[in-house]
Amino acid sequence: MSNDQLKVPKGFILAGVAAGIARKKGKLDVGMIYTSQPGVAAAMFTTNQVKAAPVLLSQRHIAKGKVQAVVVNSGNANACTGKAGINVAWESAKLAAAGLQVKPEQVIVASTGVIGVPLPFDKLKLGINKAIESINRPTANGQRLTNFSQSIMTTDTIPKIVSVSFNIGGKKAMITGVAKGSGMIHPNMATMLVFIMSDAAVEKDFLNEALKKSVNQTFNMLTIDGDTSTNDMVMVLASGQAGNKTITTQSQESKIFSQNLLQVCRELTRMIARDGEGATKLVEVVVNRARNFAAAKQVAMSIAKSSLVKTAIFGNDPNWGRIIAAIGYSGENIDPERVDIALVSGKRKIQMCRNGVDPGFSEAQAKQLLHGNELKLLINLKQGPASATVYTCDFTHGYIDINASYRT
Amino acid sequence: MSNDQLKVPKGFILAGVAAGIARKKGKLDVGMIYTSQPGVAAAMFTTNQVKAAPVLLSQRHIAKGKVQAVVVNSGNANACTGKAGINVAWESAKLAAAGLQVKPEQVIVASTGVIGVPLPFDKLKLGINKAIESINRPTANGQRLTNFSQSIMTTDTIPKIVSVSFNIGGKKAMITGVAKGSGMIHPNMATMLVFIMSDAAVEKDFLNEALKKSVNQTFNMLTIDGDTSTNDMVMVLASGQAGNKTITTQSQESKIFSQNLLQVCRELTRMIARDGEGATKLVEVVVNRARNFAAAKQVAMSIAKSSLVKTAIFGNDPNWGRIIAAIGYSGENIDPERVDIALVSGKRKIQMCRNGVDPGFSEAQAKQLLHGNELKLLINLKQGPASATVYTCDFTHGYIDINASYRT
Repeated sequence: MSNDQLKVPKGFILAGVAAGIARKKGKLDVGMIYTSQPGVAAAMFTTNQVKAAPVLLSQRHIAKGKVQAVVVNSGNANACTGKAGINVAWESAKLAAAGLQVKPEQVIVASTGVIGVPLPFDKLKLGINKAIESINRPTANGQRLTNFSQSIMTTDTIPKIVSVSFNIGGKKAMITGVAKGSGMIHPNMATMLVFIMSDAAVEKDFLNEALKKSVNQTFNMLTIDGDTSTNDMVMVLASGQAGNKTITTQSQESKIFSQNLLQVCRELTRMIARDGEGATKLVEVVVNRARNFAAAKQVAMSIAKSSLVKTAIFGNDPNWGRIIAAIGYSGENIDPERVDIALVSGKRKIQMCRNGVDPGFSEAQAKQLLHGNELKLLINLKQGPASATVYTCDFTHGYIDINASYRT
Repeated sequence: MSNDQLKVPKGFILAGVAAGIARKKGKLDVGMIYTSQPGVAAAMFTTNQVKAAPVLLSQRHIAKGKVQAVVVNSGNANACTGKAGINVAWESAKLAAAGLQVKPEQVIVASTGVIGVPLPFDKLKLGINKAIESINRPTANGQRLTNFSQSIMTTDTIPKIVSVSFNIGGKKAMITGVAKGSGMIHPNMATMLVFIMSDAAVEKDFLNEALKKSVNQTFNMLTIDGDTSTNDMVMVLASGQAGNKTITTQSQESKIFSQNLLQVCRELTRMIARDGEGATKLVEVVVNRARNFAAAKQVAMSIAKSSLVKTAIFGNDPNWGRIIAAIGYSGENIDPERVDIALVSGKRKIQMCRNGVDPGFSEAQAKQLLHGNELKLLINLKQGPASATVYTCDFTHGYIDINASYRT
């Protein structure tokens, strides 16, 4: 597989326009995805019991069948907005449907931004109409993808796009994913919105299963701040226009599609972690030799959520005591006297703890390693065969700045 | 009951000396408590599976019987230090016992500070000898208490002492508690060390039960950063020298003792929260009308642990959307459309959310309220009869500063 930046799979037209919903003047804040024919769709939504209006609507629409359009806005989450919020979500689906000549129940709606403030429908309406105009106007696909990726950003500092192409049954197919972070992010699905497009022809059951498997290894292994949002959604939409024979769970080609989907999800996960609010470093916490996957994940998550570990990493402090403390309170049964902890940056590795104690490593060298912006913490529990990787970032002044003044 | 600052119950002699274990030169870092007769003791320890050497030793000593001395050091946690660490803990108990002419198994040892670095026994030895000298030298009790409270501080900015006196069976009795915070604090028992002294005569079983009840309503309802430390300990030691008839679970007087113990624990809890690392505000999260206490606690804890809620409070941002989001992902079954959220400072109260939506409150007034340094968040779930209060603080640049550079 190869990584093709800024490429859009066959059958998709994208748009991103400015509608004045976001506070920053001129910021693109309404995005649209349109497929020339209804596509096969699968999605996973936030597990927060407080679900935004667009999540409630889109869950119903995804369950019903095919999808031909997506409307998404940033700047306002349309969450905790009561019946009025539900109306806004539904009216925006209807409006997009009418303009694009598709069925309203084949429109997915997503929102991200501040919670508890009514989403002004007049502005969203303006945005949807501008997006429809943009869909109908000739524009380079690369530009469309850039616009769309920008339209869903809130506190993200960079757009997040990953594209791969691959051969499937003799045809060239593609998967392109666009994501937004970057705070209120914790499994399962936070303020995170992820839209994945493919031109491969796939059967719905297979797509559901493939998405679930990929998300469980990637977006559900991501934590920025431990807060799970009301609006999260990861959606994959397949236009089927690559010309391949429809992939089912039984197809030989299912594996290659799944691998490429996983690759896109993993790269987007890493991009979200690296661009976590205020982050200066991507941190991958790898737990090996745990009893089972759940145990490995729980230990990795405990480390990745620890404010003390994350501030130490920000401060280039090889304070492995905080890491073993987080392992100890993870809730998993571990043997402190068997725990190994290593720090990895690029090809360099420093063993900071072996069998629960300091083997005598060089703090100066470890501090130097910590200056890298892609770090791995390798944990060996010596209890069983299972591994898990959790993606996170360091915890910095930037996070406090962003979140002490996000609205005001 | 009355609050008597800087008073030591009958039968206790305290000391706090400088031994050079803490990095800051001249800082008091070894504390000692001595009772003229062995006292009745109860204690609760960290639930972290990675337990520091002094915790392992003191658990055994508390289980065995009476206690006549406590040795505590700051600057080094003696955690993850292997067999050498266990030896240091045991040798320091023996040394104190010899000097004070008590039994080694009646000495409790506690440590707080950095994890994974060997505790230098030569320095601790010096400190213990100096403390014994100080115990034998005439000094005002108030000064002793101040010295002891300072000797256990690490990142605390103020010493934490609470003292109450009360009548019990016609005798005057007293409870004095000394605590340290202020990071790696999360139930159950974090870097927190709490030593509570009373001159009341009490039976051990009653003391155990009374301590457990008080801790479950106070220190176990405290979260600063969600990290549970390897060294936490809350201990109560009763000298029995007030002259009252020994209090048992059945005594009429059990209630008044328990009430005063609870008061001391609650005030210390509030002091720790207020002095949380980098904190500018004490925040009490009160959840009412939950199905049961566990549910109320889980919802309150979810809010109190949310980095987004805590940074918003730091930034004086009345962002109730983050609060309802934290309620929604708490894991408790709630009905978002029945949730009320109010902000309280002093006698002023602003309803920010009623039945899941904004009732139209004044953001300007709420911002003004948020400038207070003692805030309450009042949550009404409308599901049942139970309430719980969790104590926490805001999340600030100070926390990042302290923890990005704690060791280095």
